[in-house]
Amino acid sequence: MNNSELNSKVITRGKEFFSTISGEKPSLFNKGAWMGKVMDWSMKNETFKIQMFRFVDVFPSLTTGKLLTDHIREYFGEEKDMPPVLSTGAKVAGMLGSFGGAVLNKVLTTNIQEMARQFIVGENTKEAIKNMEKLRKDGFAFVVDVLGEATLSEAEADIYMNTYLELLDSLKTEQQDWKPLGASSGSLDWGHAPKVNVAVKPTALFCLANPQDFEGSVVAILNRVRIIAKRVIDLNGFLCIDMESYRHKDIIIEVYRRLKLEFPDYPHLGLVLQAYLVDTDKDLADLLAWARQNKVQISIRLVKGAYWDYETVKAKQNDWKIPVWTIKAESDAAYERQARMILENSDICHFACASHNIRTISAVMEMARELKVADDRYEFQVLYGMAEPVRKGILKVAGRIRLYCPYGDMVPGMGYLVRRLLENTANESFLRQSFAEDAQIERLLEDPAVTAEREKVARAAKQKPEEKGPGGLKPFFNEAMVDFTRADHRAEFPKQIAEVRRQLGRNYPLFIGGKEVKTSDTLPSVNPSKPSEVVGVICQAGTREVGDAIAAAKSAFPAWRDTAPAERAQYLLKAAAIARRRVFELSAWQVLEIGKQWDQAYADVTEAIDFLEYYAREMIKLGQPRRIGNAPGELNHYFYEPKGVAAVIAPWNFPLAIGLGMASAAIVAGNCVVFKPSGLTSVIGWNMVEIFREAGLPAGVFNYTPGRGSVMGDFLVDSPDVSLIAFTGSMEIGLRIIERAAKVHPGQENVKKIVCEMGGKNAIIIDDDADLDEAVPHVLYSAFGFQGQKCSACSRVIVLDAVYDKFIERLTSMAKATLVGPSEDPANYMGAVADDKAMKTILEYAAIGKKEGHLLYESQVPSDGYFVPMTIIGGIKPEHRIAQEEVFGPVLAVMRAKDFDQAIEWGNSTKFALTGGVFSRSPEHLDKARREFRVGNLYLNRNNTGALVGRQPFGGSRMSGVGTKAGGPDYLLHFMDPRVVTENTMRRGFAPVEADDDWVA
Amino acid sequence: MNNSELNSKVITRGKEFFSTISGEKPSLFNKGAWMGKVMDWSMKNETFKIQMFRFVDVFPSLTTGKLLTDHIREYFGEEKDMPPVLSTGAKVAGMLGSFGGAVLNKVLTTNIQEMARQFIVGENTKEAIKNMEKLRKDGFAFVVDVLGEATLSEAEADIYMNTYLELLDSLKTEQQDWKPLGASSGSLDWGHAPKVNVAVKPTALFCLANPQDFEGSVVAILNRVRIIAKRVIDLNGFLCIDMESYRHKDIIIEVYRRLKLEFPDYPHLGLVLQAYLVDTDKDLADLLAWARQNKVQISIRLVKGAYWDYETVKAKQNDWKIPVWTIKAESDAAYERQARMILENSDICHFACASHNIRTISAVMEMARELKVADDRYEFQVLYGMAEPVRKGILKVAGRIRLYCPYGDMVPGMGYLVRRLLENTANESFLRQSFAEDAQIERLLEDPAVTAEREKVARAAKQKPEEKGPGGLKPFFNEAMVDFTRADHRAEFPKQIAEVRRQLGRNYPLFIGGKEVKTSDTLPSVNPSKPSEVVGVICQAGTREVGDAIAAAKSAFPAWRDTAPAERAQYLLKAAAIARRRVFELSAWQVLEIGKQWDQAYADVTEAIDFLEYYAREMIKLGQPRRIGNAPGELNHYFYEPKGVAAVIAPWNFPLAIGLGMASAAIVAGNCVVFKPSGLTSVIGWNMVEIFREAGLPAGVFNYTPGRGSVMGDFLVDSPDVSLIAFTGSMEIGLRIIERAAKVHPGQENVKKIVCEMGGKNAIIIDDDADLDEAVPHVLYSAFGFQGQKCSACSRVIVLDAVYDKFIERLTSMAKATLVGPSEDPANYMGAVADDKAMKTILEYAAIGKKEGHLLYESQVPSDGYFVPMTIIGGIKPEHRIAQEEVFGPVLAVMRAKDFDQAIEWGNSTKFALTGGVFSRSPEHLDKARREFRVGNLYLNRNNTGALVGRQPFGGSRMSGVGTKAGGPDYLLHFMDPRVVTENTMRRGFAPVEADDDWVA
Repeated sequence: MNNSELNSKVITRGKEFFSTISGEKPSLFNKGAWMGKVMDWSMKNETFKIQMFRFVDVFPSLTTGKLLTDHIREYFGEEKDMPPVLSTGAKVAGMLGSFGGAVLNKVLTTNIQEMARQFIVGENTKEAIKNMEKLRKDGFAFVVDVLGEATLSEAEADIYMNTYLELLDSLKTEQQDWKPLGASSGSLDWGHAPKVNVAVKPTALFCLANPQDFEGSVVAILNRVRIIAKRVIDLNGFLCIDMESYRHKDIIIEVYRRLKLEFPDYPHLGLVLQAYLVDTDKDLADLLAWARQNKVQISIRLVKGAYWDYETVKAKQNDWKIPVWTIKAESDAAYERQARMILENSDICHFACASHNIRTISAVMEMARELKVADDRYEFQVLYGMAEPVRKGILKVAGRIRLYCPYGDMVPGMGYLVRRLLENTANESFLRQSFAEDAQIERLLEDPAVTAEREKVARAAKQKPEEKGPGGLKPFFNEAMVDFTRADHRAEFPKQIAEVRRQLGRNYPLFIGGKEVKTSDTLPSVNPSKPSEVVGVICQAGTREVGDAIAAAKSAFPAWRDTAPAERAQYLLKAAAIARRRVFELSAWQVLEIGKQWDQAYADVTEAIDFLEYYAREMIKLGQPRRIGNAPGELNHYFYEPKGVAAVIAPWNFPLAIGLGMASAAIVAGNCVVFKPSGLTSVIGWNMVEIFREAGLPAGVFNYTPGRGSVMGDFLVDSPDVSLIAFTGSMEIGLRIIERAAKVHPGQENVKKIVCEMGGKNAIIIDDDADLDEAVPHVLYSAFGFQGQKCSACSRVIVLDAVYDKFIERLTSMAKATLVGPSEDPANYMGAVADDKAMKTILEYAAIGKKEGHLLYESQVPSDGYFVPMTIIGGIKPEHRIAQEEVFGPVLAVMRAKDFDQAIEWGNSTKFALTGGVFSRSPEHLDKARREFRVGNLYLNRNNTGALVGRQPFGGSRMSGVGTKAGGPDYLLHFMDPRVVTENTMRRGFAPVEADDDWVA
Repeated sequence: MNNSELNSKVITRGKEFFSTISGEKPSLFNKGAWMGKVMDWSMKNETFKIQMFRFVDVFPSLTTGKLLTDHIREYFGEEKDMPPVLSTGAKVAGMLGSFGGAVLNKVLTTNIQEMARQFIVGENTKEAIKNMEKLRKDGFAFVVDVLGEATLSEAEADIYMNTYLELLDSLKTEQQDWKPLGASSGSLDWGHAPKVNVAVKPTALFCLANPQDFEGSVVAILNRVRIIAKRVIDLNGFLCIDMESYRHKDIIIEVYRRLKLEFPDYPHLGLVLQAYLVDTDKDLADLLAWARQNKVQISIRLVKGAYWDYETVKAKQNDWKIPVWTIKAESDAAYERQARMILENSDICHFACASHNIRTISAVMEMARELKVADDRYEFQVLYGMAEPVRKGILKVAGRIRLYCPYGDMVPGMGYLVRRLLENTANESFLRQSFAEDAQIERLLEDPAVTAEREKVARAAKQKPEEKGPGGLKPFFNEAMVDFTRADHRAEFPKQIAEVRRQLGRNYPLFIGGKEVKTSDTLPSVNPSKPSEVVGVICQAGTREVGDAIAAAKSAFPAWRDTAPAERAQYLLKAAAIARRRVFELSAWQVLEIGKQWDQAYADVTEAIDFLEYYAREMIKLGQPRRIGNAPGELNHYFYEPKGVAAVIAPWNFPLAIGLGMASAAIVAGNCVVFKPSGLTSVIGWNMVEIFREAGLPAGVFNYTPGRGSVMGDFLVDSPDVSLIAFTGSMEIGLRIIERAAKVHPGQENVKKIVCEMGGKNAIIIDDDADLDEAVPHVLYSAFGFQGQKCSACSRVIVLDAVYDKFIERLTSMAKATLVGPSEDPANYMGAVADDKAMKTILEYAAIGKKEGHLLYESQVPSDGYFVPMTIIGGIKPEHRIAQEEVFGPVLAVMRAKDFDQAIEWGNSTKFALTGGVFSRSPEHLDKARREFRVGNLYLNRNNTGALVGRQPFGGSRMSGVGTKAGGPDYLLHFMDPRVVTENTMRRGFAPVEADDDWVA
């Protein structure tokens, strides 16, 4: 049968299908009911939809009447034209009053619970089984799925697994009483399908599933899946492994393969694939080939995919290739393509077609008929509670259908509910178009490949011309994050670490005026995870060498200052390209020299690249003299000039990013730099020399002088030839520099400008309506990522009394799941701290903390290397030292606040003001935090580290800094002085009229 | 005769006129000749026109071959399509070579001189008389005018006057031999007109003519006009007083009236009026009424006016009413209206119709005929060298015509030449339209009143909608300068000074937390011109009061910080309105308390208003959080927050502007201010209290604490509760503040931010091609305005060897013309310095200077008051103290540089980098200065003081400041810290799409 012949049949069948169900509507779109009204309003009003879905999300945590009333007011109080649906039974005006509030609370609670029940087959095993039995009576098979909160710990994974085991125990008993569906005589539905069919979410079985630790994740998930699988096999059921977000896709496929090979002969083990993923064509082909090669029977449930927004947003945020098809019809076309591939392999692969799309279903039916696929080799599935007419239609036509039935608590149910609501209200939803709108049936049944082509053409026509940034460059966008879903990225780390390891122990000179300079005084830099491993031996600059470097910078300055800003920017762009080429190798150096985890090391390098790219563009922009004022007869040009010699003093914690960031800002602005890296990361500092050298930066513009602060620090700061000091480091050193640099020495040209980033004592606030699934892992990461050695790190978590116990329980449980060990092994969540001095200080603070409060958690650590335990201390009050002093290590103080106001007050109660975070779903609290949680970088509902150049310009005030924001639009201004040149353009009474003169004539 | 009847006659006559001269062209538009080609090219190419006219302007000062070749290259080297005319006789390519250069020099020199000779009747008296005699032979009468450089001194005024006297002596003899023109038997031309007719420019007779000193200017001019008049009368000639720029119009009319009354019976004394001035209708009516009342015969030459560009530009720069008609046809219509008025009064007023416009001439002829005006009561005049066909036509029709014949040196001739070229190449030029283009004769002869109406309508239709600034406000524009051409502005000063004088000696309290606070410790503030006059008695804050003020500011801070930026801005706008209402009174306080001249005092108040208006708008702009980054799923907002308590320490030299500027910046940014005025201007400081109080600023936001620096200065600077110090004053104090403030004291919240403007040692460079007519008065003003007590003041003038002698001669001569005395008398160019301490320091420096170099000029000073002489010292080298140290008084060091490079090097050779100036007409040198004369504010071809808010943001680097620019776009940033709030907007995988997300879907 050729394509167009098949397509005609599909359309004919589709039309029949439509006519069968004509006049019926899914209950979701029934405008007579509350839910239908909400859906209707959501489709018409985007703002309402956002508020409504967010409200649905937070709803289960609104455990008191006051919380509920407050949130209703906050979410909907400002809606000018409130849908009457929201005020059913209560006047809108009454909403804000306390009586009206109580009434509305009740109405809303009832309605939302009802809405959830639409999609959720029950709140517990008993209820679920009862309802599924009812479904079976109506002829519907089921696949059951346990809704759960995000799994954040081994304990939670066990709970999740045990729920399945108990469910299976119950089902084992119950199924004996079930009459098989269809005209079957045996114990199988329709003569071939197990009556018990369960789906399991693999990431719920291991809380740290993460492609960076691919093997570890596969093994951990498999360990629990195996137990469930055995129980399923024991009752001759069907087990399907669900697919979740793209991030875990390859892990899950691998889990499936291994599981399958453990039970090669059991036919009822299935896997979900998502047609919306661009990878799926290949994944499917690989899987079929693999099954054939291994001579195993597999089963695939093909879905369209339910995380389109999420996948698109995440990819765009990280500048990854968007993993999903960006045109809806492309997914539909892929689905048909992939369905055909499965059906063509029906000898080894059972197929579950999971879709509500009548075109898709019709296509599968016609393809199956064309390929003469036996009924027992494919089936149809739809979601419980959705598209009732479709399920009825399928049942009628195919004689068999399975409903996907989630069950469980309301709280985790809400995420599922929001996904379903989203799906149904999306503009491109087939269901919305079919039932809520009167889309032409012809159009709905069109071959999606044809639709996709047409839409691609239409999109190309609408394509805006490529946006141009400063100097005609591509506009700035952050360098892509490392993508551990890619096997090549995963493989690169061990390879580059091994490569770098071969180069350890080399001797590193200074770099002054374009020449390498050796000194007899040297210091080693070691691997903090293994102090016996010397990363490099570094020449140490004394005052003489620093003096030479200052002189070299000073003499290079005039020519560099006079180099056009756009030309200076080119050097940064070249440097960025070099760092990009070397990204994995540069990351590997960081893993070994300072103990960064793979992702952290990579992020440091990309941040360095970002600084180069961003400042290059900023300088091109600022390098353009601006005409100001528009009086005729005069031209005023406002522009900037560099200050002179810049001392750049860098920390070890972001050894490339911060060092290169400060240095490149100074350089692109036209200053010449004397760079002092931290002694702990001088080899990484040398990477900067390599980069700038290869970029061809003129001699003397960048000088590298590692050295002992005690020997040459003051000398550098005091030098009358230094006009600018950029420093990032501790408050103590920062304030010392500020104080010393303020003294003008004889012969000094400029009052010294200080760009200074110092410490933090950053807090994250956990509100009483916070989404703990999000808050817990983000707090853990913020506090313990790179061992807490970030000025931005969370070192206090302020938890509202109402959620304190639950939060702490989940946080410490998750902490327990993590491992501490050398960062080069991706299984370790936390590595060694910087050096023995750091180790000592941190341990002292941990001891202080334990005295001031009580220990909630302390991890085990390896005996070799500078390891300190992950430490969580509860019962901390604002006056405690552990609540006030910067530890700069993995010690987290937990404070219990009585309400949000107190939490904010405590958040602001230290001498620092660097970062902060809030997890809350109260619009008013978020707004209050925006205004009153006065830190340089405040993060709402996410981790409080990982500021990105251009997106989260970084820096704080009070004792955290002097109000500069690295990677922000004002940053370069600190490295330059503005000048104005005014020309009187009138000569002999004659003034040329400029284009922007404010001229009336 | 009704209007339309007359108009028909005018048109008929005009057509006859056109037909008479049909086929003839003025030599100016003869494309066969070099000049015609230049004109042609200029009309086609605006850039070339600018370059050409500027080149013509500078041409006479290109006294060496090299200078000439260089300028040709600089002016025309970049012209891509060079008009072949410029390379007549020399290939374009050859221009840049030295041989080609020499050839071209010669060609150009010849051609430009020829061009000048087109308009100038001769270079000296003899030549002029010879040529005028030739003209007489052809039937043309003349009015002769002596071209002169701008008169910058009494000596130059005398030279100018004497040239006239000598000319008149020669003419007296020569005229005896002249046959009268026309059919006259007597000695008068046409039987009624003196053969000798001279025009004189009154401002050439007094170098300081200035409406601010109206009476002084009238008297001084009259003193020399009278001498010339007597000599003219003696030979029975005609004397016409020319009109120049609008600024001097009323002075000149007054001079004419007084002169006329001195010689009431002599009929041949005339005055020029300019039809393009909006005032002229009234001026003319007044003059005719005055003549009738005084029973004197007058004569008026009515011209259109030749300074249209200049008048328009100047008015717009100063935000004055544009004094000229902005539509060309309005001037033409005014001309006809005024001509009729004169002709209607022909019994008392003789009329000289000076125009090349055939419509105008025809209209005058027809009106004269209609009114039956006798031939001896009106005549026609055209400019020598222009519109030859017109002059021939008039001669034919009217039988009489007079040519306006300038003569004199090439140098001053060039200004005249440029005006003529401009006139002829203007789009709306009648001559251009008549002869260079083929405009329809009908259109050229249209009633200009009709044309004007049509164009007004057309312009209104083209009017752009009013531009909106931040917050919907009118975009910022500088407050109008005082306009001493207005009698009301002139009258206001003595009135307000008298009013203020009645209030002297009052007691002034402190102002803390919204309350007046008295102290027993007081200090008087005195009038520096008359130290016995106590302006006010001021309570002095000690540390206790300063502590109270800091506490008040600190307690007001939270509420003020949380007040919306746009609302804070409203207080500034209110304050601006109050200051605007009180502008003359506030100026009067400055005249008495610190010895500012009228204009200087007024400029200080308008600058204060500008700061208020500008910062209000800037804050509204900056107060809007900016979304940065456009990744979906996150919202990043970048915004600013105030720092806290700001100490504002103000100087006495711009007592309102700088104090209010710094304070209002701090306040509008959300900080609370403790303000310390200078002890010398504490009463003006109190004006700020009055203004902010009336504006309703909340208590504690602005606190006023005058006091002794030695008592409370350090206390204020050291306070841990002060987060920001804004200081303007001396380098010594500035550096002390910077050093002290860098120390962090216990309990201190923020690292202190210092906004600091310090001293200058500013140089103006006089290039070898500088226009000295401009350079000399601007240098004098820059150096000695307000007694040199500005940080921006010119204290060094670096003169290129080639023009050194001439420059010095003219500068010192001009200095000699000035008077030193109390500033309340507008006749005094310079007043008293700030106090006895300043007087002592300045005199010491003058003494040092005299030792290091040699005294070029030192003025006389009154014995009472803190007066120091205007002092000019020559022979100064860069190493001299007087070339390095800030004097802050009227002492100018003059340095002789061998070339421009050395001048720039010397310009940069001090520890300061505040302002600088360059007078040059070399595009390359101006460009070099832009790049290499590294000062905060560089001024090309104008004075180096008087920076305007928004147009010349003010401030320098090195030891002049920390790179802040008051009144500039970055200024408010220094008063705030940036913050970023990042919201993860994705919940449950669902992220609302924001308008500016970079979203592909």
